[in-house]
Amino acid sequence: MKKLKISVIPGDGIGREVVPETLRVLDRLAEVHGGVTFQYETHPWSCEYYLENGVMMPSDGMARLHQTDAIYLGAVGNPKLVPDHISLWGLLIKIRRECEQVINIRPAQYIEGVKSPLAEPNQFDFIVVRENSEGEYSEVGGRIHSGEDEIAIQNAVFTRKATERTIRYGFELAQKRKGRVTSATKSNGIVHSMPFWDDVFQEVSNSYPAIETESNHIDALAAFFVSKPQHFDVVVASNLFGDILTDLGATIMGSIGIAPAANINLNGKYPSMFEPVHGSAPDIIGQGIANPFGQLWTAKMMLDHLGFEELGSLLIKAIKETIGDGIKTKDLGGDSSTKEVIEHVMTKLL
Amino acid sequence: MKKLKISVIPGDGIGREVVPETLRVLDRLAEVHGGVTFQYETHPWSCEYYLENGVMMPSDGMARLHQTDAIYLGAVGNPKLVPDHISLWGLLIKIRRECEQVINIRPAQYIEGVKSPLAEPNQFDFIVVRENSEGEYSEVGGRIHSGEDEIAIQNAVFTRKATERTIRYGFELAQKRKGRVTSATKSNGIVHSMPFWDDVFQEVSNSYPAIETESNHIDALAAFFVSKPQHFDVVVASNLFGDILTDLGATIMGSIGIAPAANINLNGKYPSMFEPVHGSAPDIIGQGIANPFGQLWTAKMMLDHLGFEELGSLLIKAIKETIGDGIKTKDLGGDSSTKEVIEHVMTKLL
Ligand SMILES: CC(C)[C@H](C(=O)O)[C@@H](O)C(=O)O
Ligand SMILES: CC(C)[C@H](C(=O)O)[C@@H](O)C(=O)O
Repeated sequence: MKKLKISVIPGDGIGREVVPETLRVLDRLAEVHGGVTFQYETHPWSCEYYLENGVMMPSDGMARLHQTDAIYLGAVGNPKLVPDHISLWGLLIKIRRECEQVINIRPAQYIEGVKSPLAEPNQFDFIVVRENSEGEYSEVGGRIHSGEDEIAIQNAVFTRKATERTIRYGFELAQKRKGRVTSATKSNGIVHSMPFWDDVFQEVSNSYPAIETESNHIDALAAFFVSKPQHFDVVVASNLFGDILTDLGATIMGSIGIAPAANINLNGKYPSMFEPVHGSAPDIIGQGIANPFGQLWTAKMMLDHLGFEELGSLLIKAIKETIGDGIKTKDLGGDSSTKEVIEHVMTKLL
Repeated sequence: MKKLKISVIPGDGIGREVVPETLRVLDRLAEVHGGVTFQYETHPWSCEYYLENGVMMPSDGMARLHQTDAIYLGAVGNPKLVPDHISLWGLLIKIRRECEQVINIRPAQYIEGVKSPLAEPNQFDFIVVRENSEGEYSEVGGRIHSGEDEIAIQNAVFTRKATERTIRYGFELAQKRKGRVTSATKSNGIVHSMPFWDDVFQEVSNSYPAIETESNHIDALAAFFVSKPQHFDVVVASNLFGDILTDLGATIMGSIGIAPAANINLNGKYPSMFEPVHGSAPDIIGQGIANPFGQLWTAKMMLDHLGFEELGSLLIKAIKETIGDGIKTKDLGGDSSTKEVIEHVMTKLL
């Protein structure tokens, strides 16, 4: 019997509604499989926690996360309670960085039964590999002067190591898929970091002669996600560009509530973290209508990552069948509650 | 009789196909109106010019532009001939900066008869006001070390002056429209420049109590352009965010070939520049199928700017009627050539 320790951080808003419900599904999967149990260590770290304690997580928090096999997170942030840069940099981005989750993987797929805002969603199926440790998200910079003379300087920092491993990860992934890698750039307007990104992309691509490559400026690429999403296989992107592209990817799927993400630690020193793309959606808290599919799909990515691909496949099949049966939350055009979706998914896991 | 001097830069690719054709339309408009003539000074500045001369424009080029009333540009860039950062920073961005065209205005509208990739395009009608002089597009930064130790640093520079005038322009515009301003931010991830942007937005908004305001992170905002474009009125954005949002705006209109832009000089010292959102599209050169509507709409913005709103209205009416008549280029789902579109537009100008 394999015992897996999972750190659970429901976080804010609907994170607290979907996370506990989806843990029931994980337990059912463990039961079905027989050879594994999940042991959860649940943390109340959130904006409310901050209001009480003045920090987003306790000082030994990171060490406790490090002792577990994976981190399962709901959503962080509630700007009405705590400014975003405090809540995010004190918890979500802090974990990404200190657990060295250097890559963020976000698939987007056309799902039968989910209404896309696109007229012809055309069976797209792509994965964005996002740099997750540096780039435009940097604490380097500051302000000088005040009033009309004030200036803010923001430094984006791109290292060879982080850029290369992100791009290389994309090529490795593409080898197991359709064999095409698209690079998100903006070297026509951003003249230091992006030409550097392009150079590394070019160099890495030389070691993968069988992979088809292309570079698109982020403005055009964002537009192509709308006009021809079926074209893409693997897209490699900087932290900011990956952030923008994956919200677009989630949107063309029909709802940001359905899209999953995995923050991957590559060196094996710390756990990886699994969180849906959606945020805490404070506007719909307490109504029982939060979409749990993104969180469930995220659980599938966690199962795959932990070596239980069989359970991961069972789960994604159950997700798709449930949607196919019309058991959908409001954002997907249905009228089922969070709990009803979960119950229905459970019936599919036998 | 008013004589207006227009600098014309067809530039690269389809710029050379649509610009001369649309000048015929401008001349017809002048004829119809009677009180104005346009005098064109056409410049061959382009990637080919660079290959011959080693520069994108001659040393007295800028001075010649300064002596005219407006700049009418097609498209710049052909990465097969000249790297983008050379062609763009040597011509397009150089003109934006040296003619102090500090704001870039880009409308997006649902146009009857143009097929949008959205299932329900819903009559959207918004304008993106883009900061056009600084921000993420900066030459400040560089690289250090080489090989596996290489690092690229890119500085984004946000001044109070440029940030404030962009945001203020947006509020002024919203007062004449639906009264809503949306700010594109990313202060949860980008912790110096974007909180600064937010502060200025907040402060400017205090002087416009009647205007409804909201801030969206760029990832969510890009998604909303797809899921609820009808929500927006005026969107204010940094240079990079405005770039991304306006390609999305053009795309949901049905084709990037139809979207116009105006680079506005606010201090009256130098001419403003009018260029469509689309690029040089080297892949379709020489086929006579380039979409001239974006260039025409850009001409409408130039006419409005020069005080000939009556002609501007006549032109946009002719554009919409032509599309309504089904006279459309391939990218819009039609089969008309560039010339056929122009001929049809001309018949509408009487
Ligand atoms: C060509 C490029 C530098 C330019 C920009 O990013 O400003 C273009 O995309 C635009 O939007 O006008
Ligand atoms: C909340 C925010 C900091 C975060 C990000 O930009 O990384 C989110 O948008 C995401 O994509 O996970």
